[in-house]
Amino acid sequence: MAKQKKSQADKGGLLEQLKVPQGPVDLSTYDTRATPGFTGTKDEGKLALENLGAELSDWQERLFAEGRQDGQRSVLLVLQGMDTSGKGGVIRHGAGLMDPQGLKITSFKAPTPAEKRRGFLWRIRQALPGAGMIGIFDRSHYEDVLIARVRNLVAPPVWNRRYAQINDFEAELAANGVTLLKCFLHISPEEQKVRLQARLDDPTKHWKYNTGDVDERKLWPAYTEAYEAALERCNGPEAPWLVIPSDRKWYRNWAVTTILLETLQSLNPEWPTADFDVDTEKKRLAAT
Amino acid sequence: MAKQKKSQADKGGLLEQLKVPQGPVDLSTYDTRATPGFTGTKDEGKLALENLGAELSDWQERLFAEGRQDGQRSVLLVLQGMDTSGKGGVIRHGAGLMDPQGLKITSFKAPTPAEKRRGFLWRIRQALPGAGMIGIFDRSHYEDVLIARVRNLVAPPVWNRRYAQINDFEAELAANGVTLLKCFLHISPEEQKVRLQARLDDPTKHWKYNTGDVDERKLWPAYTEAYEAALERCNGPEAPWLVIPSDRKWYRNWAVTTILLETLQSLNPEWPTADFDVDTEKKRLAAT
Repeated sequence: MAKQKKSQADKGGLLEQLKVPQGPVDLSTYDTRATPGFTGTKDEGKLALENLGAELSDWQERLFAEGRQDGQRSVLLVLQGMDTSGKGGVIRHGAGLMDPQGLKITSFKAPTPAEKRRGFLWRIRQALPGAGMIGIFDRSHYEDVLIARVRNLVAPPVWNRRYAQINDFEAELAANGVTLLKCFLHISPEEQKVRLQARLDDPTKHWKYNTGDVDERKLWPAYTEAYEAALERCNGPEAPWLVIPSDRKWYRNWAVTTILLETLQSLNPEWPTADFDVDTEKKRLAAT
Repeated sequence: MAKQKKSQADKGGLLEQLKVPQGPVDLSTYDTRATPGFTGTKDEGKLALENLGAELSDWQERLFAEGRQDGQRSVLLVLQGMDTSGKGGVIRHGAGLMDPQGLKITSFKAPTPAEKRRGFLWRIRQALPGAGMIGIFDRSHYEDVLIARVRNLVAPPVWNRRYAQINDFEAELAANGVTLLKCFLHISPEEQKVRLQARLDDPTKHWKYNTGDVDERKLWPAYTEAYEAALERCNGPEAPWLVIPSDRKWYRNWAVTTILLETLQSLNPEWPTADFDVDTEKKRLAAT
């Protein structure tokens, strides 16, 4: 572990390493089974994840405390990826290491008619984390340039305008103290097939299976193209995309959690100073 | 552990053991340092809590899965207690063992003017858990018969009517599939003094301290009376109160978590059966 931490620091951290560079994006050049920044085995990866818990919780509490006083800062982790890529798994195993009181988790399904009428960003704004909180989006406003584009849910000029609208929105968030982390959980179609098969084979996983999953799967190339467009066109310096190789679940969980930890460390929230006189309060308390 | 489980089962579980009997309530008869249902040491208690994690998560996922299909059931854990009694600690250490995706945690502060205008139960209804979810209230509608009564925030006839309104509300919840668990985290005034002192002594805990805490502390007898009234008057069979001895943090965390586990077990949610033909789907998937 000590060695890995040092080697990541040399490279400016895992976050810098997994950031999508500006310019055109070709997802076929990203290896879905790679484990950048980690050289150990699966078991070592699982242990490394567990070992992040104490430090992560500590930083989370500092951010939370800052938010309870004057702080306005928050973190927003956006999780996107094809079905079975592990958005839920990252939340369960990574975010699950933290105090749930400091998390605001939102899972976005197909928008309701009422939500649609209010514009695609309305429900996203409703779900933003408050000061000191870590927001997590399981799917997000990106669905409005992913499934909406692939499935022709809106006309091309409509989804085409949304990239600029998203960039404006995310710049506004950054200006309001929200640190954005957008993670694309990148799996191969072969790995997806294995995972869907596993859901069909195990009766305790049937509830996770949707007959629409196979239909979506057939549109893999179109989704890849839509993801590439989103990663290229909405990749501002304050709202970076990261590609997380996700064929290995343990690596995916460790990587996203590590990036979250690095982000909290770079925010470096301080414990708030007392807004009361400590000695006076000690005397008042002693007198009770 | 095995021995303890058996002994609890003999008594109908920890939940039954900690339930407040019908009739007048005298909190002075409840020992705040007791550890009913647990005979081990502090370290054993902490370990026993950790050991509940896997089973608790499994039952939580079953309830969640049920809610994703046709189920309407949910659980609502209400945490009440004097300042420093450990409402946040229970959430961090107990609820923190579960998947945060299945939790809906709400911390109630003083109501805003807009909330007050809508009646005291409005904001509570907004925060109810959806199907399959475990809701957790850090403070609740009971504040409206606790601080509201002690501090004369409303006239006596107003708070006096609220007990019946709460009973109606909770009966409605039960009829809608919400299993209510109301836990009073019972600490002694001496233990509170130690904990407030610790917050003043540690600069990383100053943010948790509020000068109003000492003022509230001076009203301990009035709060005790208000709690006794709430526990007596709102203790219907489907919305029971439990007194959790809470001077020992490790016991408090273990006890509330154990009660939650027992509740999930008694709900006994089943994995949903497939609403599709498994063989057909296997063939469709194989063809992709």
